[in-house]
Amino acid sequence: MSAERISSLQNPRVKHLVKLRDRRHRDKSGTFLIEGYRELSRSLARDVRVQEVYFAPEWFLGQNERPLLEQAAAGGACLFELTKDAFRKCSYRDRPDGLLAVADQWETDLDQLHLGPAPLLLVCERIEKPGNLGTLLRGADAAGADAVIVCDPVTDIFNPNVVRASTGVLFSVPVVVTDRERLISFLRSRGIRTVATTPDTETLYTDTDLRGPIALLLGSEQYGLTSEWLAAADVKVRIPMAGQADSLNVAMAAMITLFEAVRQRRLP
Amino acid sequence: MSAERISSLQNPRVKHLVKLRDRRHRDKSGTFLIEGYRELSRSLARDVRVQEVYFAPEWFLGQNERPLLEQAAAGGACLFELTKDAFRKCSYRDRPDGLLAVADQWETDLDQLHLGPAPLLLVCERIEKPGNLGTLLRGADAAGADAVIVCDPVTDIFNPNVVRASTGVLFSVPVVVTDRERLISFLRSRGIRTVATTPDTETLYTDTDLRGPIALLLGSEQYGLTSEWLAAADVKVRIPMAGQADSLNVAMAAMITLFEAVRQRRLP
Repeated sequence: MSAERISSLQNPRVKHLVKLRDRRHRDKSGTFLIEGYRELSRSLARDVRVQEVYFAPEWFLGQNERPLLEQAAAGGACLFELTKDAFRKCSYRDRPDGLLAVADQWETDLDQLHLGPAPLLLVCERIEKPGNLGTLLRGADAAGADAVIVCDPVTDIFNPNVVRASTGVLFSVPVVVTDRERLISFLRSRGIRTVATTPDTETLYTDTDLRGPIALLLGSEQYGLTSEWLAAADVKVRIPMAGQADSLNVAMAAMITLFEAVRQRRLP
Repeated sequence: MSAERISSLQNPRVKHLVKLRDRRHRDKSGTFLIEGYRELSRSLARDVRVQEVYFAPEWFLGQNERPLLEQAAAGGACLFELTKDAFRKCSYRDRPDGLLAVADQWETDLDQLHLGPAPLLLVCERIEKPGNLGTLLRGADAAGADAVIVCDPVTDIFNPNVVRASTGVLFSVPVVVTDRERLISFLRSRGIRTVATTPDTETLYTDTDLRGPIALLLGSEQYGLTSEWLAAADVKVRIPMAGQADSLNVAMAAMITLFEAVRQRRLP
């Protein structure tokens, strides 16, 4: 396992890694960052094309980093060994674990989505916080949703904090990115019922049939779903709230609704 | 509205505020920090005794800070006006909003808990991350749980990040802190069924009766519930997991289970 060594904080590669935290640079290069053992390991287990892996043994937490590096190298990744300080500069984590990779973004167009007869979809409109988008991905994964559709995104799915908050689920759950108009026509053409979550309805999510082909719609943290989505939805549902108005955030609301769908879909 | 002015970063009050991030200092002084407009406002709406409010108009985000300060002063709080830099030093947030208070801790003993005939309780054992504890509180609030029981805590409930992650729900949901032995005897003596969430059972949470007096038990992030709790529980349930083993964290698992209890308890 051979690796170029980097110790200078001024090294152009180090600078490039820092730049990739910025969406403009990600979009321009068509790449993104994957930091951390778990995340890198999950990306290698999937079809993600990892170009480069930067590592710093002084930050390693366990014993399994070297085999993972060998796996990455065998898959075609170039390896770079960094000093502790150089890695500290590249890492976007409070507690780095000595692994940071650059991988190719992949095609996320709606056309990429291949669905079975009764899919369970999670549609997130205009989510702002990367942490929420990542948590939504985790929830969709846990519930076995067929895909997450990111609609009119504010945050791009390749944001390092989406990767982190998703704990690598970004690499396993099908994710597509699209806009409202295309998505509505896509869902209608396939007979997929749209279920909008909103406080402004009397219908409880538990009183609605969530079986069959459905798309659960969740809106932005601050404003919820746009009026256009609310008007387009086949049914509107709410989660009964006992406490303060903002006790449930969008990720929790998604989790609760998704698992109610799971419950109903397991009914005999 | 009169306020002492503080500009020195070396001011003993500034130093004390920083120290209160530390549990030892919180426990010694019997006080804790409340940062942020929403959190302070919610604490004032409850019985929380706010001793001091530190504010810095240069950080204010809105127009309602002054009435809130007046309300705090009317309730007996001393006010201190800080310069931008002095406040920056005291704040534990990335984006301060210019309000930080010191309040009295309150009694959280199990004896403080007064329950109706069929309570829904959330028991969290050995939760480590303040963010998770705060989110658990939010979930309990949203679901209308009667109380959160923090069992054998690793993180104290007055940790500033619990206050923040709970978005102030800490001030509205009854929270008690106790140990396993006392809690088991308390729950048994009151005929409250204990429902342990664990991956190691075949019983689904949706196939279990969650009506009547129940306590939902959730364990630590890393290890789940201790074997002692699992042995003591009346019933063990699991959430069906479609995806990666760690897709659901403890707060999400609590949310899903709590809202299934809410669903069942609303059934005719």
